[in-house]
Amino acid sequence: MKLLVRCRILPWRRHFSSTARQRVIKPVSELQDRIRPSYVQRPPNNLLSLQWPSPPRNVLITKKKRTPGITGSLVEFTTHLYNTYPAINIILEPESAKEIHEQVTFPVYTYEEPIRNLSPLFLSDKTDVVCTLGGDGTILRASSLFTHAANVPPILSFAMGTIGFLGEWKFKEYKRAFREVYMSGAADAYANIDLPEGQEPPSSLDDPLDRPLSYADIRGKSMGATRTARILLRNRLKVGVFGPDGSRIYGTGDDGDAYALNEVIVHRGSSPHLKVIDVYVGGRFLTEGVADGMIISSPTGSTAYSLSSGGSIVHPLVSSLLLTPICPRSLSFRPLVLPANTPITLRLGEKNRARAAEVSVDGKRISEGIDVGTEVRVLGEEVKNQAGEWCGGVPSIVRGVNGMEDNEEDHWVGGLNALLKFNYPFGDQDGGTR
Amino acid sequence: MKLLVRCRILPWRRHFSSTARQRVIKPVSELQDRIRPSYVQRPPNNLLSLQWPSPPRNVLITKKKRTPGITGSLVEFTTHLYNTYPAINIILEPESAKEIHEQVTFPVYTYEEPIRNLSPLFLSDKTDVVCTLGGDGTILRASSLFTHAANVPPILSFAMGTIGFLGEWKFKEYKRAFREVYMSGAADAYANIDLPEGQEPPSSLDDPLDRPLSYADIRGKSMGATRTARILLRNRLKVGVFGPDGSRIYGTGDDGDAYALNEVIVHRGSSPHLKVIDVYVGGRFLTEGVADGMIISSPTGSTAYSLSSGGSIVHPLVSSLLLTPICPRSLSFRPLVLPANTPITLRLGEKNRARAAEVSVDGKRISEGIDVGTEVRVLGEEVKNQAGEWCGGVPSIVRGVNGMEDNEEDHWVGGLNALLKFNYPFGDQDGGTR
Amino acid sequence: MKLLVRCRILPWRRHFSSTARQRVIKPVSELQDRIRPSYVQRPPNNLLSLQWPSPPRNVLITKKKRTPGITGSLVEFTTHLYNTYPAINIILEPESAKEIHEQVTFPVYTYEEPIRNLSPLFLSDKTDVVCTLGGDGTILRASSLFTHAANVPPILSFAMGTIGFLGEWKFKEYKRAFREVYMSGAADAYANIDLPEGQEPPSSLDDPLDRPLSYADIRGKSMGATRTARILLRNRLKVGVFGPDGSRIYGTGDDGDAYALNEVIVHRGSSPHLKVIDVYVGGRFLTEGVADGMIISSPTGSTAYSLSSGGSIVHPLVSSLLLTPICPRSLSFRPLVLPANTPITLRLGEKNRARAAEVSVDGKRISEGIDVGTEVRVLGEEVKNQAGEWCGGVPSIVRGVNGMEDNEEDHWVGGLNALLKFNYPFGDQDGGTR
Amino acid sequence: MKLLVRCRILPWRRHFSSTARQRVIKPVSELQDRIRPSYVQRPPNNLLSLQWPSPPRNVLITKKKRTPGITGSLVEFTTHLYNTYPAINIILEPESAKEIHEQVTFPVYTYEEPIRNLSPLFLSDKTDVVCTLGGDGTILRASSLFTHAANVPPILSFAMGTIGFLGEWKFKEYKRAFREVYMSGAADAYANIDLPEGQEPPSSLDDPLDRPLSYADIRGKSMGATRTARILLRNRLKVGVFGPDGSRIYGTGDDGDAYALNEVIVHRGSSPHLKVIDVYVGGRFLTEGVADGMIISSPTGSTAYSLSSGGSIVHPLVSSLLLTPICPRSLSFRPLVLPANTPITLRLGEKNRARAAEVSVDGKRISEGIDVGTEVRVLGEEVKNQAGEWCGGVPSIVRGVNGMEDNEEDHWVGGLNALLKFNYPFGDQDGGTR
Repeated sequence: MKLLVRCRILPWRRHFSSTARQRVIKPVSELQDRIRPSYVQRPPNNLLSLQWPSPPRNVLITKKKRTPGITGSLVEFTTHLYNTYPAINIILEPESAKEIHEQVTFPVYTYEEPIRNLSPLFLSDKTDVVCTLGGDGTILRASSLFTHAANVPPILSFAMGTIGFLGEWKFKEYKRAFREVYMSGAADAYANIDLPEGQEPPSSLDDPLDRPLSYADIRGKSMGATRTARILLRNRLKVGVFGPDGSRIYGTGDDGDAYALNEVIVHRGSSPHLKVIDVYVGGRFLTEGVADGMIISSPTGSTAYSLSSGGSIVHPLVSSLLLTPICPRSLSFRPLVLPANTPITLRLGEKNRARAAEVSVDGKRISEGIDVGTEVRVLGEEVKNQAGEWCGGVPSIVRGVNGMEDNEEDHWVGGLNALLKFNYPFGDQDGGTR
Repeated sequence: MKLLVRCRILPWRRHFSSTARQRVIKPVSELQDRIRPSYVQRPPNNLLSLQWPSPPRNVLITKKKRTPGITGSLVEFTTHLYNTYPAINIILEPESAKEIHEQVTFPVYTYEEPIRNLSPLFLSDKTDVVCTLGGDGTILRASSLFTHAANVPPILSFAMGTIGFLGEWKFKEYKRAFREVYMSGAADAYANIDLPEGQEPPSSLDDPLDRPLSYADIRGKSMGATRTARILLRNRLKVGVFGPDGSRIYGTGDDGDAYALNEVIVHRGSSPHLKVIDVYVGGRFLTEGVADGMIISSPTGSTAYSLSSGGSIVHPLVSSLLLTPICPRSLSFRPLVLPANTPITLRLGEKNRARAAEVSVDGKRISEGIDVGTEVRVLGEEVKNQAGEWCGGVPSIVRGVNGMEDNEEDHWVGGLNALLKFNYPFGDQDGGTR
Repeated sequence: MKLLVRCRILPWRRHFSSTARQRVIKPVSELQDRIRPSYVQRPPNNLLSLQWPSPPRNVLITKKKRTPGITGSLVEFTTHLYNTYPAINIILEPESAKEIHEQVTFPVYTYEEPIRNLSPLFLSDKTDVVCTLGGDGTILRASSLFTHAANVPPILSFAMGTIGFLGEWKFKEYKRAFREVYMSGAADAYANIDLPEGQEPPSSLDDPLDRPLSYADIRGKSMGATRTARILLRNRLKVGVFGPDGSRIYGTGDDGDAYALNEVIVHRGSSPHLKVIDVYVGGRFLTEGVADGMIISSPTGSTAYSLSSGGSIVHPLVSSLLLTPICPRSLSFRPLVLPANTPITLRLGEKNRARAAEVSVDGKRISEGIDVGTEVRVLGEEVKNQAGEWCGGVPSIVRGVNGMEDNEEDHWVGGLNALLKFNYPFGDQDGGTR
Repeated sequence: MKLLVRCRILPWRRHFSSTARQRVIKPVSELQDRIRPSYVQRPPNNLLSLQWPSPPRNVLITKKKRTPGITGSLVEFTTHLYNTYPAINIILEPESAKEIHEQVTFPVYTYEEPIRNLSPLFLSDKTDVVCTLGGDGTILRASSLFTHAANVPPILSFAMGTIGFLGEWKFKEYKRAFREVYMSGAADAYANIDLPEGQEPPSSLDDPLDRPLSYADIRGKSMGATRTARILLRNRLKVGVFGPDGSRIYGTGDDGDAYALNEVIVHRGSSPHLKVIDVYVGGRFLTEGVADGMIISSPTGSTAYSLSSGGSIVHPLVSSLLLTPICPRSLSFRPLVLPANTPITLRLGEKNRARAAEVSVDGKRISEGIDVGTEVRVLGEEVKNQAGEWCGGVPSIVRGVNGMEDNEEDHWVGGLNALLKFNYPFGDQDGGTR
């Protein structure tokens, strides 16, 4: 209990003594390299267990734009992290960093806004955990910061006021949620936390979730190796766009391609003409689609644009790609679900007029006025490597804790019912007549 | 012509000496136990390679019913097998056996027609290869003979006049197709073929495919271990139907359940009332479907009833289950694609009137007038065991040979275009106007 | 309150004096012939005005079956009618008549249950108004009592607890609703109401809607010729079913055919086989449908089975027939909307197996095991005769009063939103991301 | 005028003597006013009969753009008209007029290209008949020349190489087709054809369809009043677009509105954001659509964009409007079919970002970057006036002749089958299995 009292003092003391130094924005390049967790499968659960070799240090936080009150939430959240996890560094998007660095008593890290279609430098090498405050759009934007990285840090997403399909946690749960992620899989290794030089282990407060984590706190109080945060590894799409001459137009990721979380779309945009799109599956010609456009979606994206276009809802654990036409002229173009490891190519055929289509990735137009002969090449991301280790994908932290009995509603099922109004019941409940 | 004549002589000679003995129907139980092939994956091809430890001996042949000329084809095919593969035994369905055993000069094996909903005894223990002459219905029927077996022999299917989605080969290709299957993966082991006692290696003919396979023929002429028949392992559904008291109504397979190749359906049948069906996924309640019925389909079945009901087309290599409602009352019940390893339960809810639904498996009604509280429990079949070996499923022999360069059209793509008229082009080819 | 007491006395007095005579069930044939209202169109309103030449006298009331409390509502409603409209006679379905005639102090009329597929004798000649207590199924059943009549009496339908798409009024509104119907278009002619011989005009009560209608009450208090009940004339289908030999199997209405309010269906029923149904439009062959079945629906039926099968929602004022396939095998069989005055024929083609389909009209199976060659012939009902008068159809009394400014929600729009959950909004209200 | 007279004498002679003077382009304003035919309904046929009070004189011909060989066809067709119907004047679009006036020996009339969104001046006052050479796009373009006219001349459309849904005739039939139209309903009145002053009846040729029409030819050889060209009056949409301040942005037709043959669309265009569109029907709020866009279509347009977006196919004789959402976010937004005489308003709601939608009419973008508050107001065109006369709509000449027995395929049915591949049969013809 004494510790608790002291705990309150510590931040304030720090505050006074270090104001001038702390209200700064620093480059992410100064941070230590990221710590890569492992993901372990424990049957019968389909969700993986998050396992840190040592506690995460660098936390990127993104927030929704144009939303009243969200900046306050960001300040509250970062202040909590700073007070409770002394070793943690806060990374913000450049705009957020500018917006709040004067309001907080600790340094924030940021990066340079990258040039169009590129990922921010260093970010994927420095970030241990991503937290998003917002809706699905914010998660997509966070994910797009790692569009060229084969390894995305785990993402903890908080819904702010609205329900999102991908968002998982309510903001008011942030303390517990972050604690679970931070401690996930923690064992003795955690005893070796390096505090920044000269900093003392903080003492604690009333609410154990507000108590700064000291050596003592961590030791023996971890959730332990068997009680871990649950991870849904969302497969992404690997996307490359190539001009008629074969040169790459989009995508310069680790192996050349870029990643998409939801979908890639070829669309007529503002052109009034239907597009003629040749579809190749596994290198073989499948069909010529004449349509407003064509979607290649991941299972995660199956509840987004593809669903609006008549695609089925595909569970994120079904390793697959969806090919869904947008307003096709043919009456018999049904949506297809294809193996994730089969490459799909969309080619803007010779029958099209010049420069009259656009390509979008996760809702962001990456190319417009594309020419006849342009190809969009997509492959599902592998999330298990040759050695059988889970890697790749977007590791999304979902509700509940592996290793505990719990009856929390399954996120995906909840999203279907609450968000999509899937199978919303007919008003007349009396069966019988249709 | 002379060769042909000689060819004819051989059987006749045998015929003369053994008439009394040969024109008989024997029980499959007298056959040697089946030889189980292995299925080997060779990247980048998704299709597996069929590998026999020793040549197959017991061949089950099923044929379509009520089709003119098909009995002639059956006689032609079996005679070819008998003449060319002296060690091979022919197994027929009881009806076919009765129909042709007088027309052929060799014994045929058969089994007793099983009681409703059960599989024929011994058949799955004795059959090395299944050949089907007919359409998709014939394949479904052949598959239903192994509805309780975890291991189905490889199936070689010939389309007879009509195009089937599952059928692969034209009947006129039967010699080459069977030879490829017979030799698949054959190496030195094949040198040890045991001819039936007293039988001499048959002499040869012009067409190498008509030439009886002697030791000499086989040695060095095999396709070899690296040129193998291509196998598509079609996942099945494991199905159990349980009454309101929890007792099993349907399914007594190796582990209690029965297998389905295409789909399981709960349907109102001739009841005029909509059914109220509770759907559980992974043990959790998902939704209450109010509909004519509900389909749980395998990817293989995605081009059958599920497609008619608005489901997506799912490639057979996407490990998944489809949940597709039939004429649902809700406007927002979209078809779902779920992980194959997640159990789905359909439960006839209390809101239904008594005894007013029926359950069908692969188009065969297995239960009608089922009661409130009845549950249909479905799980996707695993086709890879703990040891990483491919097993289970319906091993379907598809066109082309692994290890050879070939440009044959992909079966699945061909089926989409030729059979389903998928994305059938609009008549007006001039782009522009919709 | 005293008045209320008195009010109660009046019936009882009558009761005492006439018990023996009153608690009886009488045949409808004893009733005076029906009074036919006219329906007048007043632009710009699409709904017609109900105009009685003299007040309606014979009121048929049908109620939903198997519903707790509904008998009480029936007693309450009929008692109100008896007390308030002394000249009105109550007609009930035989079952209801038996059920309540002991509980009420006035005679009820009924008819003999007709033989299958026929309409009750006399009923359409004697009924001035139909009131239904229940849901859509009750309205369909009421409508089916006039399945052979070209002129259906106006129908006033009360929803009992559940919302129905066709039902319009809440039961608690019954007094006002009936008053509006009763008075609709009433002018001086209403002064000539004939009370049953010897009966005195009842005295009045507090609530004007409880006050028995005397000469004085009616005179000058009518809604008047310009304030009338609103009628939606629902076009029906004229249906005839003919055997392979051309003989009529179903339908012996005024001109041979029978009428359907919602739809006619040819369906496989419990047959596992797809039906092959030839469709003729305007006498010309349109297409061969291979499907579970085929629906021909009226616009009124467009929100019922046709909608579940993928048909569009058609406003009841669009003069049309819908042709909607049920689970068609072809990927390109889209629902059609055809002119109401174009005859459509569904013919069970030669490719079907024998006796393996059934025909249903408005949810009632009228024929099963129908044979190859059977034809279902359908034509939309004309609701305007050569003289430009509105007639035919099912005159449904909808909310609101012509001639009054009102902002009550349009019934059809309300049904779409409240009942069908049409365009039910996505949970996440924040635009932007899909 | 004198030139015109001489022009009509023998083509060959004329050619030599008048080359220099004849190859001119004249303004349509010099032509005589148009002759309005009447349209008569003859039961049981739903198609109307075309009846000229006197022979048509001014023929507008439009042709498809960017199509090889089509100019040659235009020259051939106009030359035939000139040679065979001496009194006829040829009107061409400005581009065509420039292109061919040097190649022909007679004057052509044309008009000034109108300013965007307006109709050409005079054209609708001068044109008796429109002929189109091309596909559906050409018919739409021709129709758009009369977008502000309540009375469109009859349109005779020739498909050039491709099949169009709206196009009716093959080009090689042009002589017979035009003759039928020209003579349709002709009786004695035709005897009074005024040849230009001084012109002699042309002499004749072998093929009666090449024979110039003299008095003698016409008299007694007409198809007569009872054998007439068949007209399908295609209802159009009356469209007005109004800015947030209520001012009209689009549409300045005879009564302010403009007409559309197929559809009006509000679409996101190249904006990545879903549009929020409020839908009002008959002045009442129906629903808030969140979608890529919204289509209001005529029945004629039901086989165009609306069909691609999931709308039903509506026969052109069903008086209705279709409301079809494009990729709606809600799972339960089903296409609606509404009465043609009910106004529909689409309003760009306040939830949209600024200037981020576009409006298209018949495939032509008429407005982009439209603002929040913009309204698109649509009403179906009446094609029967108060007097019961058929007028308005686009009078499309369809195959066959009223008054003759013929078995020609119905155009609409033919279009469904040949063009849309409606209900295209599944490949496997053997019933039974799905």
